[in-house]
Amino acid sequence: MTLKLYFDLLSQPSRALKIFFDIAKVPFEPCPVALRNGEHKQEPYLSVNRFGRVPAIDDDGFKLSESVAIVRYVANKYGVPNNWYPKDLKGQAVVDEFLEWHHLDLRLGCAMYFQSKLLIPMMTGKPPSDKAVQMYENRMNSSLDNIENMWLGDGRPFLTGHQISIADLFAASEIEQTIFGGHDPTKDRPKLGAWLERVRRDLNPHYATAHKYIKILCSAGSKL
Amino acid sequence: MTLKLYFDLLSQPSRALKIFFDIAKVPFEPCPVALRNGEHKQEPYLSVNRFGRVPAIDDDGFKLSESVAIVRYVANKYGVPNNWYPKDLKGQAVVDEFLEWHHLDLRLGCAMYFQSKLLIPMMTGKPPSDKAVQMYENRMNSSLDNIENMWLGDGRPFLTGHQISIADLFAASEIEQTIFGGHDPTKDRPKLGAWLERVRRDLNPHYATAHKYIKILCSAGSKL
Repeated sequence: MTLKLYFDLLSQPSRALKIFFDIAKVPFEPCPVALRNGEHKQEPYLSVNRFGRVPAIDDDGFKLSESVAIVRYVANKYGVPNNWYPKDLKGQAVVDEFLEWHHLDLRLGCAMYFQSKLLIPMMTGKPPSDKAVQMYENRMNSSLDNIENMWLGDGRPFLTGHQISIADLFAASEIEQTIFGGHDPTKDRPKLGAWLERVRRDLNPHYATAHKYIKILCSAGSKL
Repeated sequence: MTLKLYFDLLSQPSRALKIFFDIAKVPFEPCPVALRNGEHKQEPYLSVNRFGRVPAIDDDGFKLSESVAIVRYVANKYGVPNNWYPKDLKGQAVVDEFLEWHHLDLRLGCAMYFQSKLLIPMMTGKPPSDKAVQMYENRMNSSLDNIENMWLGDGRPFLTGHQISIADLFAASEIEQTIFGGHDPTKDRPKLGAWLERVRRDLNPHYATAHKYIKILCSAGSKL
């Protein structure tokens, strides 16, 4: 039986899953899908994920997309340490609450900021649209303030309690990307800054390895 | 022990949860939160959900927000019929896959179309922005095409298989709302049309009851 992980380290949810599989010691076969070559929009990948997005898994013939659905399935099936995705109902619900919240909040703000500020200009050769960047920056800052004041507001070390979970991993991967886009999410947010350091520490060396490629690419892109 | 559901039938995820609790016979105490009076942004509601959004639950002191997290917690704790949220890992993963997909796809497109076409003009008294409506209509149509061609593409009666699940309930509630906004999502989408009829049939009378208020409001609003 083989669990195949299809991913590209250019994609934020791909990085989150790759780090999760590595840190939680989930046995898997890495299957890179080169977005730069359009491999995600062609066969054979479309037979793995008909929507042509990464990441996805093929678990001995069972194909599944959507990173949050994957992490939940894998955590339950492969029995990863309890802190990542708790087995008790309430612990699990609190992690779920964050992950469901993050889609239309943290992820939407951070990803659209990164795209408008760096990715689209890099791909088109045109300067970023100030109006679009400002709109997404405001949205992102509102989400980052929620991390500082709501999720970490009571002084807890991690987003959903005293132990690191997949909520921290998904959140940090979104936030880390904005730094490559030239933003400092920790400015005037001391709790977020200390939390991000803790998450990096607990997830390394896998975290640094997964971010290496996008970091180099963004550094090159910002000099164009 | 009491499970309290805080909701307003003006909110789509509130309607989905209310219908789910009714149809799956989850014992609960209904706690309406009047959005029109700003009750969601004031105490005592902020002590239930610090983000000031509906829906939320208070399950004998355990407070939880985010509709998808709630439905998962309630389905597991209150042992609802298996079709709504399957107990086996793969069946559950397929429902999760749809729910995770829908946030930044179907929900984003449908909700923003509805807001820009009807809700914002009703609240501000100004005509809708044609540019915004067109942008969100395109996005919504792309998601509706995915429902027709991908999720229902192989002729299955429901989104995640042969039985109705919470995936169908969440999707139908998003799509139903666009009809009140003056859109016909079933035009040139025969599979979606037949599916929507099946979902309404299986969820009634609770589905019609939950949609009654928003239907009257939209009908009045479109005549302004």
